[in-house]
Formats: sequence, structure tokens, C-alpha cells
Amino acid sequence: MVTATTTCSAVDLAALLSSSSNSTSSLAAATFLCSQISNISNKLSDTTFAVDNTYLLFSAYLVFAMQLGFAMLCAGSVRAKNTMNIMLTNVLDAAAGAISYYLFGFAFAFGTPSNGFIGRHHSFFALSSYPERSGSDFSFFLYQWAFAIAAAGITSGSIAERTQFVAYLIYSTFLTGFVYPTVSHWFWSSDGWASASRSDNNLLFGSGAIDFAGSGVVHMVGGIAGLWGALVEGPRIGRFDRSGRSVALRGHSASLVVLGTFLLWFGWYGFNPGSFLTILKGYDKSRPYYGQWSAVGRTAVTTTLSGCTAALTTLFSKRLLAGHWNVIDVCNGLLGGFAAITSGCAVVEPWAAIVCGFVTSWVLIGFNLLAKKLKYDDPLEAAQLHGGCGAWGLIFTGLFASKQYVNEVYSGDRPYGLLMGGGGKLLAAQIVQIIVIVGWVTVTMGPLFYGLHKMNLLRISAEDEMAGMDMTRHGGFAYAYNDEDDVSTKPWGHMAGRVEPTSRSSTPTPTLTV
Amino acid sequence: MVTATTTCSAVDLAALLSSSSNSTSSLAAATFLCSQISNISNKLSDTTFAVDNTYLLFSAYLVFAMQLGFAMLCAGSVRAKNTMNIMLTNVLDAAAGAISYYLFGFAFAFGTPSNGFIGRHHSFFALSSYPERSGSDFSFFLYQWAFAIAAAGITSGSIAERTQFVAYLIYSTFLTGFVYPTVSHWFWSSDGWASASRSDNNLLFGSGAIDFAGSGVVHMVGGIAGLWGALVEGPRIGRFDRSGRSVALRGHSASLVVLGTFLLWFGWYGFNPGSFLTILKGYDKSRPYYGQWSAVGRTAVTTTLSGCTAALTTLFSKRLLAGHWNVIDVCNGLLGGFAAITSGCAVVEPWAAIVCGFVTSWVLIGFNLLAKKLKYDDPLEAAQLHGGCGAWGLIFTGLFASKQYVNEVYSGDRPYGLLMGGGGKLLAAQIVQIIVIVGWVTVTMGPLFYGLHKMNLLRISAEDEMAGMDMTRHGGFAYAYNDEDDVSTKPWGHMAGRVEPTSRSSTPTPTLTV
Amino acid sequence: MVTATTTCSAVDLAALLSSSSNSTSSLAAATFLCSQISNISNKLSDTTFAVDNTYLLFSAYLVFAMQLGFAMLCAGSVRAKNTMNIMLTNVLDAAAGAISYYLFGFAFAFGTPSNGFIGRHHSFFALSSYPERSGSDFSFFLYQWAFAIAAAGITSGSIAERTQFVAYLIYSTFLTGFVYPTVSHWFWSSDGWASASRSDNNLLFGSGAIDFAGSGVVHMVGGIAGLWGALVEGPRIGRFDRSGRSVALRGHSASLVVLGTFLLWFGWYGFNPGSFLTILKGYDKSRPYYGQWSAVGRTAVTTTLSGCTAALTTLFSKRLLAGHWNVIDVCNGLLGGFAAITSGCAVVEPWAAIVCGFVTSWVLIGFNLLAKKLKYDDPLEAAQLHGGCGAWGLIFTGLFASKQYVNEVYSGDRPYGLLMGGGGKLLAAQIVQIIVIVGWVTVTMGPLFYGLHKMNLLRISAEDEMAGMDMTRHGGFAYAYNDEDDVSTKPWGHMAGRVEPTSRSSTPTPTLTV
Repeated sequence: MVTATTTCSAVDLAALLSSSSNSTSSLAAATFLCSQISNISNKLSDTTFAVDNTYLLFSAYLVFAMQLGFAMLCAGSVRAKNTMNIMLTNVLDAAAGAISYYLFGFAFAFGTPSNGFIGRHHSFFALSSYPERSGSDFSFFLYQWAFAIAAAGITSGSIAERTQFVAYLIYSTFLTGFVYPTVSHWFWSSDGWASASRSDNNLLFGSGAIDFAGSGVVHMVGGIAGLWGALVEGPRIGRFDRSGRSVALRGHSASLVVLGTFLLWFGWYGFNPGSFLTILKGYDKSRPYYGQWSAVGRTAVTTTLSGCTAALTTLFSKRLLAGHWNVIDVCNGLLGGFAAITSGCAVVEPWAAIVCGFVTSWVLIGFNLLAKKLKYDDPLEAAQLHGGCGAWGLIFTGLFASKQYVNEVYSGDRPYGLLMGGGGKLLAAQIVQIIVIVGWVTVTMGPLFYGLHKMNLLRISAEDEMAGMDMTRHGGFAYAYNDEDDVSTKPWGHMAGRVEPTSRSSTPTPTLTV
Repeated sequence: MVTATTTCSAVDLAALLSSSSNSTSSLAAATFLCSQISNISNKLSDTTFAVDNTYLLFSAYLVFAMQLGFAMLCAGSVRAKNTMNIMLTNVLDAAAGAISYYLFGFAFAFGTPSNGFIGRHHSFFALSSYPERSGSDFSFFLYQWAFAIAAAGITSGSIAERTQFVAYLIYSTFLTGFVYPTVSHWFWSSDGWASASRSDNNLLFGSGAIDFAGSGVVHMVGGIAGLWGALVEGPRIGRFDRSGRSVALRGHSASLVVLGTFLLWFGWYGFNPGSFLTILKGYDKSRPYYGQWSAVGRTAVTTTLSGCTAALTTLFSKRLLAGHWNVIDVCNGLLGGFAAITSGCAVVEPWAAIVCGFVTSWVLIGFNLLAKKLKYDDPLEAAQLHGGCGAWGLIFTGLFASKQYVNEVYSGDRPYGLLMGGGGKLLAAQIVQIIVIVGWVTVTMGPLFYGLHKMNLLRISAEDEMAGMDMTRHGGFAYAYNDEDDVSTKPWGHMAGRVEPTSRSSTPTPTLTV
Repeated sequence: MVTATTTCSAVDLAALLSSSSNSTSSLAAATFLCSQISNISNKLSDTTFAVDNTYLLFSAYLVFAMQLGFAMLCAGSVRAKNTMNIMLTNVLDAAAGAISYYLFGFAFAFGTPSNGFIGRHHSFFALSSYPERSGSDFSFFLYQWAFAIAAAGITSGSIAERTQFVAYLIYSTFLTGFVYPTVSHWFWSSDGWASASRSDNNLLFGSGAIDFAGSGVVHMVGGIAGLWGALVEGPRIGRFDRSGRSVALRGHSASLVVLGTFLLWFGWYGFNPGSFLTILKGYDKSRPYYGQWSAVGRTAVTTTLSGCTAALTTLFSKRLLAGHWNVIDVCNGLLGGFAAITSGCAVVEPWAAIVCGFVTSWVLIGFNLLAKKLKYDDPLEAAQLHGGCGAWGLIFTGLFASKQYVNEVYSGDRPYGLLMGGGGKLLAAQIVQIIVIVGWVTVTMGPLFYGLHKMNLLRISAEDEMAGMDMTRHGGFAYAYNDEDDVSTKPWGHMAGRVEPTSRSSTPTPTLTV
């Protein structure tokens, strides 16, 4: 309530004003009016913080829901025997990521002022004196944490079904706690060297790289890390047969894949539009209905259109190439479209998002063909999808960023998309971003995976891989549709002439009485 | 921040006021005060837009989540062999719908001024100069798109397990891009001929039809379209045996059905309360705590109560009729209760919602008995549930709409529910809506399905239907719980005496060593 | 829009001010200014209601999503043969709970003024004249309903796989409609005897118990009710073998368990931060960026950190104790960490939340060992997790509640955590809460379960338990992955030498042609 401001007595004020040639009285009138205005101002300020934090918190919850999406997508995309393993990695990305990001990751990324390379301001480590300034509240920490764990989730897809659990714990902590925060500092922090939202005007090429919600910072980082992991590990047993032909090792549940994809789609509405961080900001007094809320809505629309176009393009092109309508491929196309538009979603026109999605589909198909040719095995196509489409997304922004939107979203008069007449500076910055991310992730994650490999900590044994990780490492198989207790209730109980029920916890008996 | 308004210096203002008999000084004082008030006004206006857009965007995300709900509900309700097929249709409803609704569907629906039949204002096609006025921002487009794809999702349930994929692509695009937008124009656009929110006073029967969130516009349209599709296609093989007895072709996963149902419930909180489009509006200065936010909350409550009552009624009535407690029937009852209250949710009392839900349950049971009698096969009961309960919902609104709520939600003094003493005008408008929707969908979708049928594009072959669409059209079976690699890890591996593992991608070997 | 306030004409106002020694004119100036200020105040008040209700409604939707989480967690944790049964109970917790909470539960809980024991104000029964005051709108009812059904959901886990459906209907209605509302009245209502937010200053031990989001009110109530149910029923057949050894009866789907866990995590962001009920409130004028929105965000962070720490601690401790990395245990640890922090989430520092989570893991492991020793069978570990970790959470708050946060969240100068230097009064109140909840739930639910047991209404027959409840009570098995129509399409069709397909709806034929 704003009780203080509701008690404007016209009679009292009139008495003050009527004798306002008297300076005491005029001071009283002015004091009264200023106190009213000041109360209103405070309340408006509170309102702005409440609205923006509400917006950011619910966006953060949506981004967090993507972790569930990843878990279901990954689970459905691997074979049943490795389901528990990969779901555990997804739970732990979130859990271990929370601790490491709280302790130091967040400070590395946003603890400005930085040393040029990495953030280090004390109040950000373990949120020790937080919040201590405007624009950086707990909601911001939560939102950035949800982003950090997404990167690790991407990588876990690339190295699925063959990685030791201890190796996973090591790379995940390193990625979430150091590699990713560094990159997000460079491109998103207010004193990041390539950030388009630097607080001074010392922008890279006078522009800075525009990676609005992280095609590069999140998707490429996760994808390139996965690329090195999968390269060092090599393909899963049976993925390429003796003659070198590619053999699809299909995931065990298309329902989980679709569930995961839709959840990722749902969460992307937190990921992309949420990256504005605030929503209460007018852009144009002559059009009072137009403001950051419009830009937020437009971002949701460009995101939708890019993903949907990529899905449709993939549907028809795969129909031509493979001869059937494949829902898994459509899901991957969709996600590729989202990963690509993530960089430019806030600064391109809706029609351009359709262009983005259309090209994305072919980028993904191309990288997948290349992967097949190179006998690169990535169970989730994570390197191709997040790495490849993410890189294309950065280029796309350099080509199609609109003048008006760049100026509204990043204040000032700046370079914009090459094909929109904005010159090549933005595109150059985007290309620098691609090179830097590939380089940085390569020099950090490459040696890490190689070291783990050399210490025999990276890949599981061939026997374990054949048996599945759930049985050998995680205490059992993920599913038990056939209850042991009563044969007659099982839909397939009558198929097998088993004389005696065997305990599920014991080793399955090899002797059959048929 | 509202920096401009926080600098109210009482001393300076007092100086101006004290000499305000001097006209220059009084102008300065007035200018100062007016500029403060104007700044505050602008900020309040910005705040209103930000709050309302936040509310609408997150509501849109919830409605979008219903598409995931549909996908899971449909997947669980069909046999395993058609899972990939139906999930693909659900993904594509969203994807193809985004493109067609962006290009023209949205303009047909809301591109006012219209030609009386359909919207056509240029700025809405491909959102070409959008937003160009207050009250219609990108959030509104996103929200309406999420509604459009829901209609197509309903229809896909009716014709599941036997429809050619190409036929699906055709009807889905036609429904989302033309049939549905036309209906939403008539009943929801500000110049729709039967809209209760026409901007002029030329209301149908002085009332207009009240279909607040779309029992008719969305659910009946989807349901009647499904009815014609399913009628033209005929029942699935085996659905009625040679003696004409109904044989339940049970879905393959009750877990997916419950998952889908709960997700639809979750999303309905965006569908119904979200249909207010805005939330920041006081209704009554004498009760400052009462406003659109209360009506929004009440709408969430009526929605909940109707669905829950229908679920409970179905539970007990099916226990009496069928002899067991059936979770699938309870889920359908629940969804029927939601579909019915969708029309009147904003304008009825909570107790009336309980009446709505109670009757809904019997409407659904009745239509299902009728369907059985007529040998009508609808795998998801979509025509009965969305068509039948949707029609009942429109009538219910005509009977129970409360005077106060109708006047608050639709401004002015208007007809309300017949049983609430509001006369028959509203009920008449509701009945007109039912007739018009049945008629319009029949004359558009009926010929479409019939034409596809005549061209042999509608139904798959009997062999394909027996084999399942996933194997024949979509590249494989949706599930692979039994990994081939190592027999001993499979819970049922010991059941079958297979001598050698067979590659999943090859045809299953018919030779058994038992 | 705030049109009334945007028409501040400086010229007109100046004319009024310049002649303001004239009292008529000065009254006009004052009237004008006061009317402007009054309009602004009204608009600000509307804005506050809109923002707070938006915040509370979407929080309520998130809490509702927890019911889906419970359904999936429970489904995955039981054997396949009881899946439909437990999912039905989860749907009905929500549905039956909506009706009983609407009719009387809500009035019992919050219908102040109460009679000291239970609420009873008429306007709350069936929301009969609601909302009738500020701070209690439909959004509040919806939010509290979502909490009420969570308690019943917890209990259903403890007595899963062996409880008659009628018994479930009885206890669930009693718990949601009476037992739980009474407890929530005592600890959360503005005139609850142990409430920390009493409107008068008559606080228990000058402090009141701080159970911010319900470690005790929700989790302990559900857990202790489950404890008595499971104790009276006894363990499931086969849970302990003849020599008394514990035999794990593993759930049928780890994927559903992880899905449910993540959904509960997602929903907990509505449960804990949402319990502030409002978000638009500044705390400190000298730090305008700091307010309830910060506390809300901090609560989301403490919640996250406690759950994540508990998950990690459980991961490593179970690795040591059981020899493998168990995703199910990690999920339970995570949920235990959430249940524990729920009491103090709003009033502790983030680092304290890590302490909370660490201890939680050991509390859960301890209670699970105790349960094994006592041959207590709780399929979901619900009593251990929600009861045990919930009780620990209440103690934790008594130890670690921070002075600043207690004073901000609960206004006034109050006792805080013992280890933070705040004395033992809060801890004493917390211990009283534990004792009272255990006592109250024991004297209400204990006799109920015992009575049902004596009337043979509680537990199903041994035959039904062996056969599974889905087949015997719910019309069939939850899954049908093997379609009957065409043997060659089934991945395991070739395993069984069945000569003729059998109808799924008939009893599985015992004659095998092998």
C-alpha cells in the first residue's frame, strides 16, 4: 500500500498555497508536495525492482526446467542400459554446478571489476556481501547458475554411454566452475573485453560481439567441450562396423526424446527472452506502448520461428535423404534452430529468424554427414548441434542484426548486420568470438580429457560398455516392467515358460526350463 | 529507476511558490510540478505495460506447455507401434502452425478492421509493422499462436493410428491457418460479428457470445474437425469385432497419459486465467483490493473446481458402470471439465463451476455411449470430450453467467445467465455459436477429409496399420528396452534362448532356438 | 493507462498558482494537485495488487506442478503392476482436495478470527463472500490448496502398493480437509497460537515457530501420517525375507523417478520463494535495490543450495556404503534437502543452507537404516524423508536463523537462531512445533488407520497384492509395449513362439505353444 501518498488534503494544501507569499508557508507547501513526490518515486522504484525480479526469477525457473529437458532427452537418446548413468550426470550437473558456481564460478564470471581475464570481486565469492548494488540481485545469480549447468549438460551428451563416472565429475566441475565462467565474463560481463554491453565505450571493433543469450557462450562452449571428449574417447563399440559403415545405435525411448525436446523448448522461453534480465523499460515516448516488453515478446517470437523453420526443413530434407518422416531428426533440427537463434534473437526481425532456421537445418545435416565421414560418434549430436549451429548463429547475427533493435537493446549508435547495411565490424567481432571460444575450450578441455585418458580415468572397459553402465556402476537396470511376483499378471509373462520366479536383485539365471 | 522524479528540492520549489504571484515564477513552479507528474505518469504507463506483458508472456508459455501435454497424452493413448507417428504430429502442429499463423493466420484472426468475415489488416501479415498500437504486442501474437496449435492438437487425437502423414500435414495447415483463425475472428476480434467484446455496441442479441477462453473457438473447432476426420476414415482395424462388439484398443502407457493430463492441467492455468490478457486493472475504488487480479484468480479457481468435480464424478460413475477405478477415465473426465468451463470460467461463481463439472461428466459418458453405439472410433475421445463438453460449456455459460462478473469482465450493462435471472439473450447467442461452429467446421473440414479420402491420401493401408506406422513410415519402433549387446543384462534376456544377438537395425530373425 | 494524470497543463496550473493568494484559486490548485496525487496513488495501489497477485498465482501454478512431480516419482518408485493405482491416488489428491479445501478446509485454516483451535469465519467456507479484505484473494486460496494436496501426496507414498482404494479416499479427504488445515492454522494463520506472523504480539515464547514454507506444516504432517499408515499396514509381501533380511522391491522406472524429482525441484521454486505471498515491498530506503524481491531470490538460492548439497553428500556417502553411484538415492537426498530447508529458507544465509543440506543427507541415511532395522516398509521413504528431514529442518531454523533476515521477514525485533547468537527461544518454539505435529497427527491419523484396519478396509488381500492392484482394481496393466497385432514389429516378438495373437483384454492365455 502507499498510504503515505493517499492523504493529500486539498484544504490543508490550499491553506499553505494561499499564503505562499509567506515564505514559511510556501516551504511547508513545497515540503509537502516534495514528500508526496518522493514517496511516489520510492514506490515506483520498488515496483520496478519487484517487476524486474519477478520477471527474472520466473525466467530462471524456466531455464532450470531445461535441465529436466536435457535429462529426458539424453535418457531417451541412449540405450536402456545406460539410462541411470546419464540421468545421474544430469542431476549432478545441476547439483555440483550449484556449489561450484556459488563458491567461485559466479565471481569469475561477473565479479567486476575484473583483471581483464576473469572476474574477482570479493562480494561475489560465495555471495559473501550480496546484493551490494543495483542490478545484480540473487535472481541474477540463480539465472546465471541455470545457464552454467546447461553448458555441462550439453557436453554430457557427446560422451554418453562410455565415460567413467569419476571423469564426468572432474570435467563437469572444471567446465562449470572455470571454463564456462571465463567465457561468460569475456562476452557478458560489463568489463568483458569482447562484451557488447561494456560500461565504457572501449568496444571490440567499436561493436563488441553480440551473443545475446549464448549461442557461443553456452552452446558452443558445451559443444566444443563435447567434441574433444568424444574425439579422445573414440566411438562407442559397435557404432561403426568392421567395414567402417555407420550403425545407428538407437536410443531406447522416443517418448523421452520428445518429452525432453518440448521441455527444452518450454525452457528456452526463459533462456532467450529472459536474457534481457529486466522488462520494465520504455523505449520510445512517442509510442508509449513500445518498450522492452515488446522486445522481450519479439525475442520469444524469433526464437519460436527459427526453431520451427529448422524443424520443418529437417522434416522434408530428411524425408528426401532417408526416406521416412523421422521425429528424432525433427527434434534435433528444432533444437538446432533454437541454439542458432540464441545469439541474435533480440536484435533480428522475425522474418530473419526464418532464414536462420532454414540455414540451421542444413548446417546440422552437413555437420552430421561430416561426423559420419570422420567416424565421429556423438550420441546426442551435441557437438554438431550446439557447436555447429551455435557457430552459425553467431555469424547469422553478424549478417542480420537490425539497426533499430541493436540500438534499442544495446544503447548507442553501433555497427549492425552486414546484410542489413551495417558494415562488417559486427560480423568481425562475431568471428573473433567463434575463434576465441574454439581456442579457449580446446586448450582447456582438450588437455583435461587427454590427461584423463592417459590416466585410464576416462573410458570404461569394453566389458562394462557391453554390459551397460547401469548394471555395472549404478546398481541395476533402470526399468523393470515385468514384475517378478506373479507371472500371470505380466503381459509377456506367458511368453516364457519360466518355472520359478527369480529375484530381480540376483543375477538372472541362465538356466531355462522350457 | 525514476531518477527524474526523485529530485524534488523543497527549497527550490518553495522559492518558486513563494513568489508565485509573479507569473514567471508561478509558471516555473507549475512546469516543475507538471513535469514531475508527467514523468510519474509515463513511468506508471511503462509499468502497466511491463506487468501486463509479463503476465501474458508467462501465460503464453503455460499454454505452449499444453502442446507437450497433448503429445504425452496422445502418445500414451495409442498403441506403442504408433507412438512416433503421433508425437511427430504434435511437434509439427506447433512448428507448422508457427509459420502459417505468423504468415497469415494471425492476420485473418485479429487483423482488424476486417471485411466482416475475416481479418485483413496489412500490419498483421508476417507481423510486418508490429506492434503499431496499444494492446496488441508480440506477447499477444505468441499467446494466440499457442491457442491455434491447441485446436490442431485436438483433431490429431481423433484420427490417430490410421492417417497418412501427408494428409495430416494438409489438414493441420488448413485448420491452423484458415478454419480456426476465422472462428476466432468471429468470436474474439474487436469487430467479430458475434464477439462479446466488440468495440462498437452492435452486439449479437445485444449480448454477443461469451466464449471467454474458447470452449467453442478452440475445443469445439478441434473436436468437430476430428469428428469428421474420424467419420470419413472409419474405425481402426479391430476396434469393433465381427459381431460389432466394441473392443478396447488400449493405449500403451498409462504413465504418459497421466503425465500428459497433468501437463494440460498445468497449462490450463495459462489458457483460462491468461485469457484476460491483462491483470493490472482495478474494478472498484471502494474496494481497492478488488480488481482484474481477483477475477484472474477466481478464473483459476473455477477452472480447478470444474475439472476436479468432473474427475470425481467420473471416478464414481465409472466405478458403478464398469466395476473398477479407472485412471484413464478420470483423466478424461478431468479434461472434459476443463474444456467445458473454458467458456464461462471468468464470469461464473465457483459453486457454479462445480455444477458445470458434474454435468460435464455425464455429458462425456453419454457421448461415449453414443459413439460406441454408432461404432464411431476416436482413439482419444477427442470429439466427445472437446466437441461435446465444449458445446455443453457454451450452454452452461448461457445459464450461469453472473451479472456482476459479466459487467466487470465485459464492460457495460449486459444480458447474463438465464438461471441467474439475466434472460435468454446470452443463451441464444451461445446456441448460435454452437450452430455456427458446427456448421463452419463441417463445410470446411468435411469436404477436405472427404476429398483426401477420395484421392486415397487419407488412410494408410491395412498392412501398414497392422504393422504400425512407426515401422513403416517413421524409421522404427519408438522403444528399445532390450539392448542387444549383452543378453545377461536384460531383465528378460534369460527368457528367450536366443543363440546370437541380432542387430536391431536388421529384420528380427524368425528362427528361434528354444 | 493513467489518463487522468497525464493531463497536467502547466499553463492552467500556473494561472491557479499565480493567483493563489486568492483562496478560491488556491483551493482549485490544491484540488488539482491532490487529485493528481490521488490518481497516482490509486494506480500505484492497483499496480501493487497486480504484481503481488501475478507473483502468487504463478507460484501457485509451480506448486501445483509438484503434484505432477509426486505422481511421476511415485509411479516410477513402485512396481509396474501398481502404477495405475498410485497415479490415480495422485490425481485424486488434487481433485478431491480441491472440493474439500474449497468447502471447508480453507476456512478451517485461514478463516480468522478463529476459536483458538481452528478457523471458522463464514466468508471463507466455499469462498462465500470472497475476497472481502485486502491480502487474501483467490490467488491465496489457490496457493494454499496446492499446499494442502502436497501433504496428502506425501502420505500416499508411504502406504503405496498395498492399500485399498476406499481407504485411500477416506484418509486423503480427512487429511486434506481437517488434519492439515488445523496444523496450518496453528502455525500460519494470523491468529494461530504458534504462528510467527500473529497479528498481535502474543507470540509463543515471544517468538513463534518459524516454519516459513512448511517443513513441519506440510512435510512432517504428510510424513507422520504416512508413518502411521505404513506401520498399521505392515510391510509389503516380500519386502523382508523369511530370515528378516531387507529385500529391495525396486521401482519399475528410474526415468519416471528422475522426471518426478526434477519436477518437484521445479515446483519447489513456487513452494519456498512463493511463501512470501508478495514481492513488492522495499526493506531499506538507504539501499533502494534491496527489498522483498531480494529475499525471494535469496530463498530460491538457499533452497537450491540445500538440496544440491544433500544430493552430493548422499552420492558420495552411498558410494562408500553401497558401492555404486545410485541416482535414486541422489534424488531422495535432493528432495530431503529441499524438505529440510523449507522451514528456514527465508531466514538463513546461503552458507547455512549448505550446512542444512549436508546434515540432511545423514539424517535421511540414519532414518533409513533405522527403518530397515525396525522392518518398517515405506516404498517412497516418505516418512523418513518428509517426516525426518522435515523435523531436522525445524531444528536447523532454530539454530541458524539470521537476525537481520528474521527481522525483515517477520517484522519486529525477535529471537533468532541459537548458533547465531539469538538465544534459545526460537529453538524452543521449533521443538514445540515438532512435538505438537507428531502428537496431533498421531492422535488423528493413527486411530483412523487403525480403525480402517480393524474394519478390513485398509489393506488389500495377499492375492491382490501379488497380482498387482492395476489388474485387480483398475482395469488392467499400465503398459502395453508389445502390440498384439503383428508379431514381426515387436522387438521381442521373435522371442516367444506364440502361434496366435491373444487379445490383450482377455486373460493372458496360460497355454504356450513352444
